[in-house]
Amino acid sequence: MRYERKMILDPNMMPTREGVLRAACKIAEILPPTPLLPIKIGGVSCWVKAEVLQPVGAFKIRGGWHRLSDLGAEERARGVVAVSSGNHAQGVAWAAQRLGIPATIVMPRNAPEVKIAATRALGAEVVLYERPGEDRDEVAARLIALSGATLVHAFADAWVIEGQGSAGIEIAAQLGCEPSRVVAPCGGGGLAAGLALACPQSAIVPVEPEGWDMVGQSLAKGEIVRVASDAPATICDALQPPATRPINLAVLSGRADPGVTVSDEEVRAAQRFAFSRLHLVVEPGGAAALAAALAGKVALDAQTVIMLTGGNVDPAQYAQTIATSN
Amino acid sequence: MRYERKMILDPNMMPTREGVLRAACKIAEILPPTPLLPIKIGGVSCWVKAEVLQPVGAFKIRGGWHRLSDLGAEERARGVVAVSSGNHAQGVAWAAQRLGIPATIVMPRNAPEVKIAATRALGAEVVLYERPGEDRDEVAARLIALSGATLVHAFADAWVIEGQGSAGIEIAAQLGCEPSRVVAPCGGGGLAAGLALACPQSAIVPVEPEGWDMVGQSLAKGEIVRVASDAPATICDALQPPATRPINLAVLSGRADPGVTVSDEEVRAAQRFAFSRLHLVVEPGGAAALAAALAGKVALDAQTVIMLTGGNVDPAQYAQTIATSN
Repeated sequence: MRYERKMILDPNMMPTREGVLRAACKIAEILPPTPLLPIKIGGVSCWVKAEVLQPVGAFKIRGGWHRLSDLGAEERARGVVAVSSGNHAQGVAWAAQRLGIPATIVMPRNAPEVKIAATRALGAEVVLYERPGEDRDEVAARLIALSGATLVHAFADAWVIEGQGSAGIEIAAQLGCEPSRVVAPCGGGGLAAGLALACPQSAIVPVEPEGWDMVGQSLAKGEIVRVASDAPATICDALQPPATRPINLAVLSGRADPGVTVSDEEVRAAQRFAFSRLHLVVEPGGAAALAAALAGKVALDAQTVIMLTGGNVDPAQYAQTIATSN
Repeated sequence: MRYERKMILDPNMMPTREGVLRAACKIAEILPPTPLLPIKIGGVSCWVKAEVLQPVGAFKIRGGWHRLSDLGAEERARGVVAVSSGNHAQGVAWAAQRLGIPATIVMPRNAPEVKIAATRALGAEVVLYERPGEDRDEVAARLIALSGATLVHAFADAWVIEGQGSAGIEIAAQLGCEPSRVVAPCGGGGLAAGLALACPQSAIVPVEPEGWDMVGQSLAKGEIVRVASDAPATICDALQPPATRPINLAVLSGRADPGVTVSDEEVRAAQRFAFSRLHLVVEPGGAAALAAALAGKVALDAQTVIMLTGGNVDPAQYAQTIATSN
């Protein structure tokens, strides 16, 4: 299998199960496991992993911590740059603040205001770009050329994949066995790849917004498929990268089920379910896996785990979703 | 110390620390501990106990389970009756459904619709009364006279107090020591009394809505003080019993700090804080302790625990609270 090495920070570094286990150990030292909560869907008992209860409200803190805490002294001094619509931004900023590393985050101007404000509150410098129009990776590349900072990619990074996979190690410990199936919201495929490494016996089911299923399409076709330029709008702001990357596809090929997508209305129904039944605040992208489960689009059993990945949502948007009757 | 024995189901039964420990063991068999989550308030790190993550969205499941699971076969056959604005209703209904016990719940007609619906969904029969106007205890007494059912009082009941106290045992296990201080929303004083028994070294700080601080006033005066007939409206529907009872006052006397009250606006600010920082849905009454902490009304330190006791709130009311800017 070939990888586009330029996408990987350290050309010799590929994510491994050993790396996931090391990430899980590092993360257990600073963050308690997020709860695995029982729920019933259509009469079937299964589980949700409440990553919205992470300090930054999203699982992205895992990859951010694993990556940044592995940087050497010189790399730390030059700082880090990340490109993110919000949750990866906060994960990197949280780790950077804790480690005393300067962080610059490139964020789309139309990202949720709460995510931009929270990233700044964690001490990071935020550089805004227009989505669509500007190439966010070019914005980041210019910043890196100036400072020599390290890029922390949101999903095409071996450490980030391993860090996200630590959630799977926690789940197996909490369940007492590997889950039969992990259903996870999917943007670029970092979490799905990490879970695939963490839980080799489990089915991995990435769930994408309708029209943005480029991980599913890439898996079906065996090569990178970009999102169409006329892709429909989606409320899942966290699940909108234009394409997955070879490092993610390599890990996921043959391991993940392609083809599960959810509509905005299914996502809102899942947010309402989380509100009334679980008392958890879940952002649209964070509710995508639950939406697929509630819509009957994935098989469920007593060892199925549904990831609730993020809870950072603008209050006005959330209020509108909740106030709409089911 | 004298007790009004008629208020106690078994005249020989008083709540004890041993009873709290027994309740904690029973509850650990069926419910995982709710998470103790770190938060920072005004630069001080402390903890919240997320009881909103209980299956019925409130700590009341503890007392309901401890009481009902101790009933004998004959008592179970005759059923139980409870009087509740909603969370105790769901706690008792949940336990009754699990144990196959018929449950009738007397609820105020103006209780949040979500609480009435959830109680019915758990298989309980709901009898509505007018608040104020009808005496809810008389409604319950009439039902009991007909069926011979057992009354499960929301707070003036030794088992219920012991059951609620199990939260304190969990907290001490999670912290690795007894907390310095437990700040808890307070209605009739069942939870506060249970926590006082569970954590003999901890300061217990009950927090009540402005104008409804009859536990605080009763503690200050050394006798039962009823809420004034012209008490102001409060959004804390869960914290509105007309008076505490001797069994609660007896346990709390000399153990709890009186005098902490919160306004509706402070409660709403706490609900917004829980939404944006913790990603937890908290109902008004469940946010009272957090409101007091955020308003600087209680001392905080690294071993202070703030109880988030309930998350059952009507979506429209919650949407309005969240959409209002801080």
